[in-house]
Amino acid sequence: MNKRIAVLPGDGIGKEVAKGAVEILQAVGERFGHQFSFAYGKIGGESIDEFGTPLPDETIQLCKESDAILLGAVGGPKWDQTPAHIRPEKGLLKLRKDLNLYANLRPTMYYESLADSSPLRKEVIQEVDMLIVRELTGGLYFGKPSERVQHNGEDAVVDTLYYEKAEMYRVIKLAFELARDRNKRVTSIDKANVLESSRMWREIAEEVAKDFPDVKLDHMLVDNAAMQMVMNPKRFDVVVTENMFGDILSDEASVLTGSLGMLPSASLSENGPFLYEPIHGSAPDIAGKNMANPLAMILSAAMMLRVSFGLEEEANEVERAVNQVLDAGIRTSDIASFGSPHTSTSKMIDEVKAVL
Amino acid sequence: MNKRIAVLPGDGIGKEVAKGAVEILQAVGERFGHQFSFAYGKIGGESIDEFGTPLPDETIQLCKESDAILLGAVGGPKWDQTPAHIRPEKGLLKLRKDLNLYANLRPTMYYESLADSSPLRKEVIQEVDMLIVRELTGGLYFGKPSERVQHNGEDAVVDTLYYEKAEMYRVIKLAFELARDRNKRVTSIDKANVLESSRMWREIAEEVAKDFPDVKLDHMLVDNAAMQMVMNPKRFDVVVTENMFGDILSDEASVLTGSLGMLPSASLSENGPFLYEPIHGSAPDIAGKNMANPLAMILSAAMMLRVSFGLEEEANEVERAVNQVLDAGIRTSDIASFGSPHTSTSKMIDEVKAVL
Ligand SMILES: CC(C)[C@H](C(=O)O)[C@@H](O)C(=O)O
Ligand SMILES: CC(C)[C@H](C(=O)O)[C@@H](O)C(=O)O
Repeated sequence: MNKRIAVLPGDGIGKEVAKGAVEILQAVGERFGHQFSFAYGKIGGESIDEFGTPLPDETIQLCKESDAILLGAVGGPKWDQTPAHIRPEKGLLKLRKDLNLYANLRPTMYYESLADSSPLRKEVIQEVDMLIVRELTGGLYFGKPSERVQHNGEDAVVDTLYYEKAEMYRVIKLAFELARDRNKRVTSIDKANVLESSRMWREIAEEVAKDFPDVKLDHMLVDNAAMQMVMNPKRFDVVVTENMFGDILSDEASVLTGSLGMLPSASLSENGPFLYEPIHGSAPDIAGKNMANPLAMILSAAMMLRVSFGLEEEANEVERAVNQVLDAGIRTSDIASFGSPHTSTSKMIDEVKAVL
Repeated sequence: MNKRIAVLPGDGIGKEVAKGAVEILQAVGERFGHQFSFAYGKIGGESIDEFGTPLPDETIQLCKESDAILLGAVGGPKWDQTPAHIRPEKGLLKLRKDLNLYANLRPTMYYESLADSSPLRKEVIQEVDMLIVRELTGGLYFGKPSERVQHNGEDAVVDTLYYEKAEMYRVIKLAFELARDRNKRVTSIDKANVLESSRMWREIAEEVAKDFPDVKLDHMLVDNAAMQMVMNPKRFDVVVTENMFGDILSDEASVLTGSLGMLPSASLSENGPFLYEPIHGSAPDIAGKNMANPLAMILSAAMMLRVSFGLEEEANEVERAVNQVLDAGIRTSDIASFGSPHTSTSKMIDEVKAVL
């Protein structure tokens, strides 16, 4: 197989972990006889420094011409004072929008070998296997107006939660399709007792459910969900929700595994290319220190193999290698028990490669 | 002391727990020589059934003429099909707005005797003492428009996150004032990398901080906060945030204590009367079964004694009595270990009264 992969390392630890994913993909290519070529593009703070914009046209072009995209992370304190429209994060948001990446898939699973690094009791997280499907190109993130206003002579501000019915429909439908291949349960999360958008969301979920008689739908209010996510995470199979709720709940769900450094994600559009990125950010405090956990990025690459390229066996191999390394007790500092020995980013990458 | 208290039991377990708070307040009155009189009003589903509206004018009037308000809970499946504007929850939202209850205080603390009922490890929750201050009368809850719209011939929907500067200012200032009497740290939570309203919020927090040189302010993104709340809850002292984020995070924080059934709240306005309610809802599944945990409501009454009436000693006594009962191993089912014996709502009320 011949595939071209756009690599956007971005800022901070993004660079360090992206390197890991590329090396692992190269190793997979060699072992299984695939040709993966990598084309690098700039995004985020690095791009602001060079081009004055967090997402240059060349990068968008590069992504559109590729079969899939790997992204590290964007942002850092260096760009905290730049005007709002040229923040590093705007590059990521614009890329999601330009490529129409409407669904962000965030799987959370239980790693027996990491049970001790979660703040939750083992009984609570054991066997957790949840997939959060977050709407990614609508809602408060993109609604207009989003600006300062004057109201009766008072300083005020407005953001807008806007959704078209079709935007809700497609992401909810995708969640049902994914549930079909899993445990056949969809939990739709909203705030229907307060928001009109949530009432529409709930109606559409009911409408979609009619086409999936084999999948069980239930509704949960977002405040309750934030509690259930840690109180009783095993009750969830596929979770689907709008952009902002999904942002909050999926970061919260990272405590189930014990570290953001373990969690991959895939962002899907209707016709591709898809984008794969770890859930964690650019982690300025540890950037450049060879300390970051590269596994979220490596597991994102595994998702790419499976979802974009249909390479199930290859994806399984990467995941198996990651598990083998974890079972051997090898840890970056984020997943090591306090005070116990831990390894570096580059060493962790080498360890995974070695057992691949 | 002579005080008139409006009691709005509402729906479901609201009635059962409100009864408990009233009995405890009566006992406190007798013991300390205060005259508490109770005036009952209707709100929520019960009020819809009787008056066709979730908040009749008489109830608003009653509240305005009282020194403080006790509220049970509103809502239930019976009213799920009523039109959006006459839902039980609308009664509560309207009451908050009409009485200008702009700040909702939600303390979360560690109960040694309940450590086993939390899904979190004891090391994580030990000594947690956090106060969430949630803005309660603005943001997505009240912004207009909040309606279905047509856009280029497509069905769409819009909700509005609107804040005036003064609304942000007063609640953030209150958080700093409260921090002064605690550990002198305020964590302000927003989504400043995406929302214009959050950028304004952050600016105002910085502005307020200048008047409180003795209090340390830090900012945290809401997604990160949802993680830190369970990963490292001890890092928080006072947390302040806007309405929707506060709704989500404060329900999440209930896992630290192990049950929503333990958590009280106070809602403050500029000139009173203040409203006291448990964080939990009407819990239709256990309503009428004499199973609900009355402690959140009883602890809300303790907050009333302290905050509205300045009766510090009396408030401490109620809290001490609750702790004594818990230390004696008496439990309603929500805080009992699985399969172990538990008591009823009315018995729990009696137990607290007995040690008062
Ligand atoms: C960086 C930020 C804009 C982004 C988001 O809020 O979507 C991040 O938190 C994420 O979840 O990918
Ligand atoms: C009942 C509902 C409208 C309410 C809210 O969202 O504010 C509740 O969840 C709360 O937190 O008091």
